Amino acid sequence: MAAPLQLSVLGGGQLGRMLGLAAIPLGVSCRFLDPSPTAGAAVAGPLVVGSLDDRDALAEVARGSDAVTYEWEGVPAASGEFLIGLGHRVDPGVRSLATSQDRADEKELFESLGIATAPWRRVDSRTDLDAAVAELGFPAILKTRRGGYDGKGQMRIATSSDLDPAWAALGDASLVCEGVVSFRRELSVLAVRGRDGATAVWPLVENTHHDGILHVSLAPAPGLTDALQHDAETLAGAVLDALEHVGVICIELFDTDHGLVANEFAPRVHNSGHWTIEGADTSQFENHVRAVLGLPLGSTAARGHSAMVNAIGSLPDRAAVLACPSAHFHDYDKPPRAGRKVGHVTVTANTPDERDARLAVLQRAVAT
Amino acid sequence: MAAPLQLSVLGGGQLGRMLGLAAIPLGVSCRFLDPSPTAGAAVAGPLVVGSLDDRDALAEVARGSDAVTYEWEGVPAASGEFLIGLGHRVDPGVRSLATSQDRADEKELFESLGIATAPWRRVDSRTDLDAAVAELGFPAILKTRRGGYDGKGQMRIATSSDLDPAWAALGDASLVCEGVVSFRRELSVLAVRGRDGATAVWPLVENTHHDGILHVSLAPAPGLTDALQHDAETLAGAVLDALEHVGVICIELFDTDHGLVANEFAPRVHNSGHWTIEGADTSQFENHVRAVLGLPLGSTAARGHSAMVNAIGSLPDRAAVLACPSAHFHDYDKPPRAGRKVGHVTVTANTPDERDARLAVLQRAVAT
Repeated sequence: MAAPLQLSVLGGGQLGRMLGLAAIPLGVSCRFLDPSPTAGAAVAGPLVVGSLDDRDALAEVARGSDAVTYEWEGVPAASGEFLIGLGHRVDPGVRSLATSQDRADEKELFESLGIATAPWRRVDSRTDLDAAVAELGFPAILKTRRGGYDGKGQMRIATSSDLDPAWAALGDASLVCEGVVSFRRELSVLAVRGRDGATAVWPLVENTHHDGILHVSLAPAPGLTDALQHDAETLAGAVLDALEHVGVICIELFDTDHGLVANEFAPRVHNSGHWTIEGADTSQFENHVRAVLGLPLGSTAARGHSAMVNAIGSLPDRAAVLACPSAHFHDYDKPPRAGRKVGHVTVTANTPDERDARLAVLQRAVAT
Repeated sequence: MAAPLQLSVLGGGQLGRMLGLAAIPLGVSCRFLDPSPTAGAAVAGPLVVGSLDDRDALAEVARGSDAVTYEWEGVPAASGEFLIGLGHRVDPGVRSLATSQDRADEKELFESLGIATAPWRRVDSRTDLDAAVAELGFPAILKTRRGGYDGKGQMRIATSSDLDPAWAALGDASLVCEGVVSFRRELSVLAVRGRDGATAVWPLVENTHHDGILHVSLAPAPGLTDALQHDAETLAGAVLDALEHVGVICIELFDTDHGLVANEFAPRVHNSGHWTIEGADTSQFENHVRAVLGLPLGSTAARGHSAMVNAIGSLPDRAAVLACPSAHFHDYDKPPRAGRKVGHVTVTANTPDERDARLAVLQRAVAT
């Protein structure tokens, strides 16, 4: 017998929605907590409407569950601590959550594990900023330690004349200043760790961003070598073990002449892993559900070659997309709004060339 | 923009559940009609509780929908006619539904298209039965024209002493008597036809039954040749076009020394097509949704080699299944009961040998 399992998910956006849809065939029911009564995850399970720091709502969504997880790393660490205090398991754990919320802590974790990062300095005053730029040179990027995503909360400092506006925009917060890394391309590695410490790593993904928002992911990354995949697996395994992380993690990387350089990580399923729904033996969503419930992990092997294209702002015409060879449509049921991720499309293929050709067909269809 | 679409589904069992789960990423909302308030499809959309011939319930489930379909060929044809009278589109059409509900009509359709069937006779009296057996020989199988499924509503007549019990059991109904076909194996062909008449056919499936209930499907069928697949596609295309069918159809076949012999068809998604969720580029569920809503069909190409095993009576241990290589679990959320389909597991592989090895691992895990 497979007794029904109950999973509580903090956050009810498209990541929660896809977690919930992956959970249903496993006999796992999800219950979501989201501030919005129209949260898209509600299609995949009951929704508790409340803020992610509302203790009554937290207790309600978690009641009777076999595990608690989250789809957004902005969940307050205090909310995780509160649920743990009520006797719940929260995975990925509070250390993963808290570390990912602070760019300085995150970089110190990478460095403690011997993982290369961009050169960086803490900036807590205008004096710190001037000193950081003097050491790191131009261009540099000033970022808030907490709260940034999709290119928000950061400003590029190309010359000394950018210092005043950057400080005016961000100076109220704790900051880091990063030197710029010269890279060939942006990659990400998706990995998962089970309760028993078993890990599995999907093939590296190549990502292209538009205006700071992920636009296209290619998986496996074009030209991926065993050596590069091995480096990514070693790096991901070290981070997972150091955090005693349970669930999926995504680490964003730069592919440089000197090897992989870590940018940041998300302690959750990630947009650059959406291709795994059709493109891998087990999706990131299913493996996250398996991991946080203590079930065996599934194979992370790629099935052919995939490309994922985000729909930003509004959805393309459904019929036009479905007419494209091997196109798989994912509508998040969100009202259109500039800069908002409202869906994605994945094309699958047997070879990289076929993938590229199908991606080109899709992009023409989406552009019209 | 992809405007939301609404699909009404008559029946809310596991087929409706999987249709609904396939519909959600397409931006299609399903509403189900089922007599049971605990119907498993409710996880994938709102449920109207009512019988499939309750006109108020039919009108309610269909209200505002872009199309109406069904997950069970036992839906009364009159219910379809009623909804059409209200201005709804019902696909597959009433002709597909009515023909599939009557074994005599079904066989006459096959014969009219030059498709081989088992030798058969109509039986409306005990005299007819004696005459049929005299012509067809022993063994023969007596079947009700209407209402049989999963081996119910039929009796094997091996000798003349079986005639009285068979007649006593089934003689109240209109019947057919079939001669026995000598076959190598049982196959099925899944196919889909769009509103525009476009068709697509999945690779042939090899099926093994236990006690009249599907147990294992292998897809593509082992040793499948281009010639056999071509025959199946020709046959399926002829049936789809003759019925002006819109949606998925499954035709059960015998593989004989004299070619394919048609047994019966189901005008709906079918248990022997569950492997398509992971094993084909587009699943039977997604393509059915696409077809009945007038959307372009997706590719029916196989992705590697798959085996599907039904869980009959009760589910195997979830963790034991998930520990098997490339095993994909499907829990229908139904209470266990002898003879009831409560779930299935599909294993996927790159080669037939790997598929067979993984199936063996799964079957050992399920047996313990």
